[in-house]
Amino acid sequence: MTSSFHPPIRTLMGPGPSDVNPRILEAMSRPTIGHLDPEFIRLMDEIKTLLQYAFKTTNILTLPVSAPGSAGMEAAFVNLLERGDKVIVCQNGAFGGRMKENVERCGGTAVMVMDDWGTAVDLDKVETALNSNLDARVLAFVHAETSTGVLSDARALATLAARYDCLTIMDAVTSLGGVDVDADGWGIDVIYSGSQKCLSCVPGLSPMTFSARAMEFIRNRGTKVQSWFLDMNLIMDYWGGSARRSYHHTAPINALYALHEALVILKEEGLENAWQRHARHHRALVAGLEAMGLSMRVALQSRLPQLNAVNVPDGVDEAAVRSALLERYGLEIGAGLGSLAGKVWRIGLMGFACNQKNVLFCLSALEDTLSSLNVPITQGRSLQVARTHYNIR
Amino acid sequence: MTSSFHPPIRTLMGPGPSDVNPRILEAMSRPTIGHLDPEFIRLMDEIKTLLQYAFKTTNILTLPVSAPGSAGMEAAFVNLLERGDKVIVCQNGAFGGRMKENVERCGGTAVMVMDDWGTAVDLDKVETALNSNLDARVLAFVHAETSTGVLSDARALATLAARYDCLTIMDAVTSLGGVDVDADGWGIDVIYSGSQKCLSCVPGLSPMTFSARAMEFIRNRGTKVQSWFLDMNLIMDYWGGSARRSYHHTAPINALYALHEALVILKEEGLENAWQRHARHHRALVAGLEAMGLSMRVALQSRLPQLNAVNVPDGVDEAAVRSALLERYGLEIGAGLGSLAGKVWRIGLMGFACNQKNVLFCLSALEDTLSSLNVPITQGRSLQVARTHYNIR
Repeated sequence: MTSSFHPPIRTLMGPGPSDVNPRILEAMSRPTIGHLDPEFIRLMDEIKTLLQYAFKTTNILTLPVSAPGSAGMEAAFVNLLERGDKVIVCQNGAFGGRMKENVERCGGTAVMVMDDWGTAVDLDKVETALNSNLDARVLAFVHAETSTGVLSDARALATLAARYDCLTIMDAVTSLGGVDVDADGWGIDVIYSGSQKCLSCVPGLSPMTFSARAMEFIRNRGTKVQSWFLDMNLIMDYWGGSARRSYHHTAPINALYALHEALVILKEEGLENAWQRHARHHRALVAGLEAMGLSMRVALQSRLPQLNAVNVPDGVDEAAVRSALLERYGLEIGAGLGSLAGKVWRIGLMGFACNQKNVLFCLSALEDTLSSLNVPITQGRSLQVARTHYNIR
Repeated sequence: MTSSFHPPIRTLMGPGPSDVNPRILEAMSRPTIGHLDPEFIRLMDEIKTLLQYAFKTTNILTLPVSAPGSAGMEAAFVNLLERGDKVIVCQNGAFGGRMKENVERCGGTAVMVMDDWGTAVDLDKVETALNSNLDARVLAFVHAETSTGVLSDARALATLAARYDCLTIMDAVTSLGGVDVDADGWGIDVIYSGSQKCLSCVPGLSPMTFSARAMEFIRNRGTKVQSWFLDMNLIMDYWGGSARRSYHHTAPINALYALHEALVILKEEGLENAWQRHARHHRALVAGLEAMGLSMRVALQSRLPQLNAVNVPDGVDEAAVRSALLERYGLEIGAGLGSLAGKVWRIGLMGFACNQKNVLFCLSALEDTLSSLNVPITQGRSLQVARTHYNIR
């Protein structure tokens, strides 16, 4: 007979999910209520207000889609595209490629602006593409590339899109809560994120926000949205973008308890404080890694504090290192994807997992593991350097 | 400052979500691990085996979609249809209508077989439709209509479909775990269900199973599935329908802990025992309701034990009764939908919520509430009749 599943205790410092705050796990385990219960409607309203805070927006249509970030990406494209539409897609990692897939499955055409994995989106190339494709309706880009740890300049991209009268779709799966995401200030039309990165909630939800212009487009489309489940015309009736509340699907009640608690925690800390915390621990981690003799993949000005791509030293079996970290230390870090497979490790410092204990633990575990696998590194300095960074004597 | 959300304690006897077993809530709150962790892969394998047990199938492609039952419905249609395909859709309630929406959003044509809300799908009408549409590729029907509490004859419908060489899509959202669902025995090609009905898990997941014939079709489609998120060609690489395990999306880890525990509980009880329990408490509830002078909407031979449509007596404000039950007793029952709006209440007896305490509590609360609202009912007999049913002296 199959028995209950008891997960091992891990420290999650990969590309997500990140360690979940116990407050969130506890909130999620509270008794389930109905999805039309007046108290649940109140919870939905609070979640909306808290998400508006996190996205820095007054957008009415701000809500969590009841599925993971991948479904959030799909919701962005299926709502904003009609067959035959042209989209400029910036690709500098795995998720730009997934955007292309989404455009094509909507019957649209993707004009690709390609940059190397590990570099930011090149603004000049984007302007050239916009200028050569004046019939493009949408510019889509990834704010924080989870596959490479690169931050692109969202404000500048949105400014370019506005100049060419394009709507914008931004992937903020890994950025929200870790670095500034300014929906209204930058004028982004559709943003989707994920619950399991810097919000440190459980995976399974995709917070989204739609500008008034995006809502207007969706309401006046000539054709129905190809996905019933993700059709914002129907979902806004349930989440209160319209006057009445009507049933669409059964909301994932307990996951929404969790998201609410995660957002309460973010509000308590304050957005700016959360970004500063990510930056501080990132600096300590990098200092420690460099003291060990390891190097960072991404140029200083494009580095995401919450996701650190570290070059794998020549000749090292990167998978063996990750396996050893998991087995000996219960520590999960991420592998490289695509053109960075085998070349980098991805070390996450996301949300609740972004703290001094994890930084020191990760450096210590990595130093021990690399040494034991006979990788030539500088021993005995990494922790000291990181501690100095924290001003611990 | 917004504070943590503490839900009221409810008894969930509506159309779902149903009361969640505390074992499941506790399992869900265990620490999150990564979606590529070897221990998580083991959990996925166990979930697959347990779902095969629940669906009575050996289908390799048996898995929970990472989103609610509505997404499961969409997954069935987007994978099995290509543009221009014709589908016979049986509608005898709300969810048949949603199937039509799905067919049309896939670029298909739905031939509707309509039956009154509250009655089962008429086999003769279906045969006529199949015979008049020999180019139809798929027959789609709802096994247990959540909007009306009606069970249709899935085995007979599948036999008809086979005779006309149609694939079958079956909605088992409300049936799985409450009445017999025999995927292999009946030869159904695609079944989707929901986590929050008779499995008594939290809402947010849609267990599905695909026959070898359905998998074969999906693998050899001429066009890509229009949804990237729900494309089984990609999902089977992650859930192990193919040889390798490759990342598709971040699975909702903790929700899957919950589903695993719900399925372990079902296995411990045994499928047949679970069906018998639903039937037993249903009989006691109906006896008690009838002793109060209330009547059932659905004919005896088509009644779902897990969802009981009760006629609202003439002149009664049904919403006022539901509000009073919620306010005074914390008891949630459901309203009618569509053509049954205002005409029925829907009383669920699903999974963990299907027990003697809930039956007696519901009868007591309903009798008190109806009396206090001056609805003419027979008082003082209902509980006694139900108790007799349970052989309590």
